[in-house]
Amino acid sequence: MEQIARLGNDLLYQQVAVRIEQMIEKGVLRAGEKIPSVRAMSRQQNVSMSTAFQAYFLLESKGLIESRPRSGFFVRLANKDLPPQPSRTNPPLIAKNVDIDELVTEVFEAARHPDIVPLGAACPSSTILPVNKLNRLVVAMTRKYGDRAVEYEFPPGNELLRRRIAQRSFTWGGNLTADDIVITSGCMDALNLCLRAVAKPGDTIALESPTYYGVLQTIESLGMRALEIATTPNEGLCLEALEKALNNNDIRACLVVTNFNNPLGSCMPTENKKQLVDMLCKRNIPLIEDDLYGELHFGCNRPQTAKAFDKKGLVLLCSSFSKSLAPGYRVGWTAPGKFKEKIERLKSMTTIATSSLPQMVIAEFLRDGSYERHLNQLRKAFCEQIQTTLKAICKYFPIGTKVSRPTGGFVLWVELPKQVDSLELHQRALEKKISIAPGPIFSTTRKYNNFIRISCGNPWSKEIEMAMIELGNLAKKF
Amino acid sequence: MEQIARLGNDLLYQQVAVRIEQMIEKGVLRAGEKIPSVRAMSRQQNVSMSTAFQAYFLLESKGLIESRPRSGFFVRLANKDLPPQPSRTNPPLIAKNVDIDELVTEVFEAARHPDIVPLGAACPSSTILPVNKLNRLVVAMTRKYGDRAVEYEFPPGNELLRRRIAQRSFTWGGNLTADDIVITSGCMDALNLCLRAVAKPGDTIALESPTYYGVLQTIESLGMRALEIATTPNEGLCLEALEKALNNNDIRACLVVTNFNNPLGSCMPTENKKQLVDMLCKRNIPLIEDDLYGELHFGCNRPQTAKAFDKKGLVLLCSSFSKSLAPGYRVGWTAPGKFKEKIERLKSMTTIATSSLPQMVIAEFLRDGSYERHLNQLRKAFCEQIQTTLKAICKYFPIGTKVSRPTGGFVLWVELPKQVDSLELHQRALEKKISIAPGPIFSTTRKYNNFIRISCGNPWSKEIEMAMIELGNLAKKF
Repeated sequence: MEQIARLGNDLLYQQVAVRIEQMIEKGVLRAGEKIPSVRAMSRQQNVSMSTAFQAYFLLESKGLIESRPRSGFFVRLANKDLPPQPSRTNPPLIAKNVDIDELVTEVFEAARHPDIVPLGAACPSSTILPVNKLNRLVVAMTRKYGDRAVEYEFPPGNELLRRRIAQRSFTWGGNLTADDIVITSGCMDALNLCLRAVAKPGDTIALESPTYYGVLQTIESLGMRALEIATTPNEGLCLEALEKALNNNDIRACLVVTNFNNPLGSCMPTENKKQLVDMLCKRNIPLIEDDLYGELHFGCNRPQTAKAFDKKGLVLLCSSFSKSLAPGYRVGWTAPGKFKEKIERLKSMTTIATSSLPQMVIAEFLRDGSYERHLNQLRKAFCEQIQTTLKAICKYFPIGTKVSRPTGGFVLWVELPKQVDSLELHQRALEKKISIAPGPIFSTTRKYNNFIRISCGNPWSKEIEMAMIELGNLAKKF
Repeated sequence: MEQIARLGNDLLYQQVAVRIEQMIEKGVLRAGEKIPSVRAMSRQQNVSMSTAFQAYFLLESKGLIESRPRSGFFVRLANKDLPPQPSRTNPPLIAKNVDIDELVTEVFEAARHPDIVPLGAACPSSTILPVNKLNRLVVAMTRKYGDRAVEYEFPPGNELLRRRIAQRSFTWGGNLTADDIVITSGCMDALNLCLRAVAKPGDTIALESPTYYGVLQTIESLGMRALEIATTPNEGLCLEALEKALNNNDIRACLVVTNFNNPLGSCMPTENKKQLVDMLCKRNIPLIEDDLYGELHFGCNRPQTAKAFDKKGLVLLCSSFSKSLAPGYRVGWTAPGKFKEKIERLKSMTTIATSSLPQMVIAEFLRDGSYERHLNQLRKAFCEQIQTTLKAICKYFPIGTKVSRPTGGFVLWVELPKQVDSLELHQRALEKKISIAPGPIFSTTRKYNNFIRISCGNPWSKEIEMAMIELGNLAKKF
């Protein structure tokens, strides 16, 4: 009886979904437009609210619409409107000494001038960060705590902040306590400490291809070796490729950006995260999980982390407030499982402690609902910036361009036609006062020659549109 | 003619000096007492101001009196009143793998409880730091710069702060510009970056014996080897011992605390600093100079640095504001000579940047005369705390105790009678809620078993006096 009722219900919401799908196909509802609210739809179609909801979820799961926090549902750019995504990567299955440090320096040194259109660095514009509220809290905390802002906050760091971070862990499937966490000077500090805690010079670290150049530089500077693993732009790390690598190499640790990988934008399905943890735990190999972008999801739900499936204390989760709140505060954290004592010691002997006042201010920001409200706005802003930039790429970039379709974060990974040399494109763009991140810095293999990463950290503007047109023209000239 | 005049003058100031010396010998002027001002003395003795000055300088050079900034001249504790100093150290001339990390953790973990009398960690009490002024500047800078407190301050770091540090370089014989400096997250960050810039795992670093345990931990964590060089408690590093070590070992770099070494309190004479630089430059060996305590001199003049004699860019000078202004801000710096580009890159890939707001606040603090005024007070406070603690050691510690007589900084290096096991003493003191730093953590050689370091970072109090009595009693029981 119950099953029949559910079946009837199923059919009803499917019918609603089909109607909306047709409206999208016929162009009545166009990409980027808001569709009626659940309440309005339930009235219009004379169905219950929950049926309308189910219809929307079905459409969302088909990739036709997307929910944006506090804004409702929007028609997604249909696949036919967008260039295809880059294909699965295919790095060679051998560990490499890393040698990209000089290249990275060269690329970013020139790009730091203030009059450059900043499509290079993955940095959120302060115009979409809660600067005034943070500054008010700086004043309040200074008054409230007096001496403490000037005194050391020894590892593991500010207790209140650690408790707030632990409280938020339920959003990604975790159940941390304040004692599980060590505060660091940003996520890179956390990643550095974790790498040093689990591996020695000469050891091989498996990571995604492409991967954030900062991690490659760190591995280079620590004298470790990088083994790049194949990825797809939607799901990130290919587990079968990792399995193969594990079988054929002596891998000391694995470093993965599970959610909204930079530069790929990929987000590992929950099931894959679970399998990843199983696969590594079976072999007793630590997983350093970089979840820097996990809070910046465009959909309603925050993606889980691999850490949620960690039963042996082998997952070292790392994140920070640099992409979501205050880059200049340099406050990050790690929940390093059984390596916690080692991490605390390494923290003590590298920077002694993280700056005290910024920790207090962020702890206070996380106290009431402010952070969640701010995140909702920020997710909306990044989602819009990504959508608008995607459209501009469609419009202005050469035929044959492929581009990622991230569901979080604020970077796009663009595959240009084969003949485009992205290092050369980077040079020519700089001459026009535009910075981009050329593909080769995201790999040890000197692959991704015709790829670029475009950061959407700044609100769309006429200036950015002009830069996108210019970039497209420069790319067409190859 | 001129010579005769000067000779007459010489005799006059010497006569004045002899008179004062006799007053000290007869106990008319006692240790710790202020002697008449130069002006008063010139009136009393009917000599010119400059003659009185010359007399005081003569007495100072004989170690009988000492000048304290803004306070005048004081009778020093005469040698006969004080226990002797520890003798020259005599470490074995072989490079060692370092293995003190666990010991240090053990020692300090238990000592961090707030109800412990803190004679262990070398940390200035916030009661003698300009907390209110700093907090006022935090508010002012937040208002003045708005967004900038939240944004990254990429390496080399805040330009204004670098300029202020460069301006102060003339006080130690340097002539830096803002471009010579990289801001770091405290001095340990600077030392870490410098070690990584000049040496690789397996390389040998020459350093003083005893030396700060944090540096030993860093060397251990980087897989480098430590070669300890003999020191004397007054002049620090023995140059002939270093020369011998250089001739017999493949030394990659040298790390020296030239001014007010922690724990020794030694200060290298200017001539030795010059020779040290010559000796290393001739062999093209980098010198990492830790000048963390250089500003905290008790005498009128700030000691010079070895960096002042660096012509080849081989001296990497490191310091911070953690001991003199705001430990919790985590702001330090390095002037790394020709390694600057490498240091900037390493900084980028370890912590990306140093926290922005603390840099702004310190830059502002250094703008007018505030910092110098504060330093004068702080030097006076540390000098008094050192003197009082020295007297307490005389009074309460067992016969046979030796102790350093630092002319700057705020730590004392105490050699207890041979039978005292300082690790055991540390345990017994902890039970009485007193923390000290036991000698063995300051060396890779497990020497200094009967040594302790006592920090004088807190203003003298009844509680501290009781702790010193207790410590003395505990030591006597061995």
